[in-house]
Amino acid sequence: MLKLLSLCKIADAAAKARIAKDYDIAEVDGPVKEEDVLRQIAGYDAVMVPFTADKLVSERVIDAAPDLKLIASTYGGARQNIADVYAIKKGITVIHSGASRERPMAEYTLALILSSLLRVHCYHHDMVSGEDWPRFKYERTRILRGRSLAVIGLGRIGRAILELCRCFTDDLAVVSRHLTAADAATLGVKLLTLNDAFRSCEVIVLAGGSTADTYHMIGAEQFALMREQALFVNIARGKMVDEQAMIAAVQTKPIFLALDVFEEEPLAADSPLRACDRVLLTPHRANNSIEFEERWGCLAEGLECFARGETPESALTLARAAVMSES
Amino acid sequence: MLKLLSLCKIADAAAKARIAKDYDIAEVDGPVKEEDVLRQIAGYDAVMVPFTADKLVSERVIDAAPDLKLIASTYGGARQNIADVYAIKKGITVIHSGASRERPMAEYTLALILSSLLRVHCYHHDMVSGEDWPRFKYERTRILRGRSLAVIGLGRIGRAILELCRCFTDDLAVVSRHLTAADAATLGVKLLTLNDAFRSCEVIVLAGGSTADTYHMIGAEQFALMREQALFVNIARGKMVDEQAMIAAVQTKPIFLALDVFEEEPLAADSPLRACDRVLLTPHRANNSIEFEERWGCLAEGLECFARGETPESALTLARAAVMSES
Repeated sequence: MLKLLSLCKIADAAAKARIAKDYDIAEVDGPVKEEDVLRQIAGYDAVMVPFTADKLVSERVIDAAPDLKLIASTYGGARQNIADVYAIKKGITVIHSGASRERPMAEYTLALILSSLLRVHCYHHDMVSGEDWPRFKYERTRILRGRSLAVIGLGRIGRAILELCRCFTDDLAVVSRHLTAADAATLGVKLLTLNDAFRSCEVIVLAGGSTADTYHMIGAEQFALMREQALFVNIARGKMVDEQAMIAAVQTKPIFLALDVFEEEPLAADSPLRACDRVLLTPHRANNSIEFEERWGCLAEGLECFARGETPESALTLARAAVMSES
Repeated sequence: MLKLLSLCKIADAAAKARIAKDYDIAEVDGPVKEEDVLRQIAGYDAVMVPFTADKLVSERVIDAAPDLKLIASTYGGARQNIADVYAIKKGITVIHSGASRERPMAEYTLALILSSLLRVHCYHHDMVSGEDWPRFKYERTRILRGRSLAVIGLGRIGRAILELCRCFTDDLAVVSRHLTAADAATLGVKLLTLNDAFRSCEVIVLAGGSTADTYHMIGAEQFALMREQALFVNIARGKMVDEQAMIAAVQTKPIFLALDVFEEEPLAADSPLRACDRVLLTPHRANNSIEFEERWGCLAEGLECFARGETPESALTLARAAVMSES
């Protein structure tokens, strides 16, 4: 049996039972800090890590755990509170909740796109805010079928968005530094530069990872290229977009925005984004569906796979880690 | 050449040019009443009919047009202002805008479903109405993938909704008096009674035609059967649902509603539907997308087909007419 320290309750009983076949599980109940982990980690083969704002599995923690072979993140990414690159370089396997985020993120993104194109949220807001029948308040709407759509960043989530959008349009493009033209052809999508995507596509979805490299990767230059009526969707991270430039753009040209993330969260109460009826706003909720709890099953599978001596499907490589969101 | 009286401008130049190859077109500009049609219709082989609140092509008009062989409705249905059954019985072909409504209605319906399941319109409304960051205001949300979904009424629009929802779930059911079990099996869907659909499905979409037969077909009995958290969507007609019973239901049990249509339109300013955060409201806008303008191309195709002596795809039969919405 391997020894697993879980820094949170394993909320899914079936997943816990699966894990317990290969691992002796010690579960920490309640909030946990780096110092707690440092004190307890010695002697464990594996550690399960919940989302926390502060670093939990730091380089110090890893150095204090000579037997550590596996780090499993229970949230979407792995970079927020795990010294993942340090761990990988020491030969430790780092896994995360794998496929469980993909479909929820894709459906939420699609909901933002359809609501924006069809003005559903505008009509609803008007009808519950004192406007009797705002039938002719807006221009005519549009559906997604056949429109040109670009996904920026083709990680697991970007791919899931792309595949779901295939039910609506074949006019698909991706912006990716890691995809070859041959890969794009195999996927049946165009490979575009960032600026060409903003210049030519009607729906543009940011789905990439937030790193030092991608900070403010989208700004005044890209918004200036956007076609009138085009829609920009951000379900990735707010820091990847120059929010002041985006506000200036939406105030001066007829573009649409659908935003689940912001440079500063919570979004400022007086943000001009709250005052424009071409902007759809949600409070970083793309990954809040109950289906994300399938993560426990994904983790159980990853842990079983590792116990058999195989490489789990969600195991990070240095290349993957480098392009995932850092927070 | 056939003689066509168009009671509206044919707004699409390409469609008009196609029609003009087979028909001498006389276009009426501006609003038109039954009396105007009565005065002008004699000698025409075909008439093109826009949406109007009052009857335009009445039995009197049809009797005054001995050469009339074709009536083409430019809006979704045909029953609002055309004596369609009378015309069909006299051997006149009645066509409408065919497929052009299907995809717009299906995407709008899907937008209502996804927004309801994922609370997108709630978050947006809160964020533009003074709530800074309503991240934990609602229960966890859910995606559509894999959920049980029933479509009530399997006309052109019901089928389009069903097909689009196949991208999300295989657990599909239909309620239809006109579908055999064998047809349902071919479609890969369950055939349910109305009550069984309300009892067993998590998403229930009303897409049938509004006739005397279907008035208040859904009421207290059906809402009492609904599962907790289930979603009822109406994109058909308000009169098919007992709105007072629906209001009582949503006020007393945790169900969700997404409504584009109402018994009385505009919806009363003080309707309790406007005050419940489990109700998504839009003002009869499911068919407002620019794609509906493809109707002109559909009509041109129907007119060409008729001119060749063939039966257009959208030609009504008495059976079809009997189940389409009367208004």
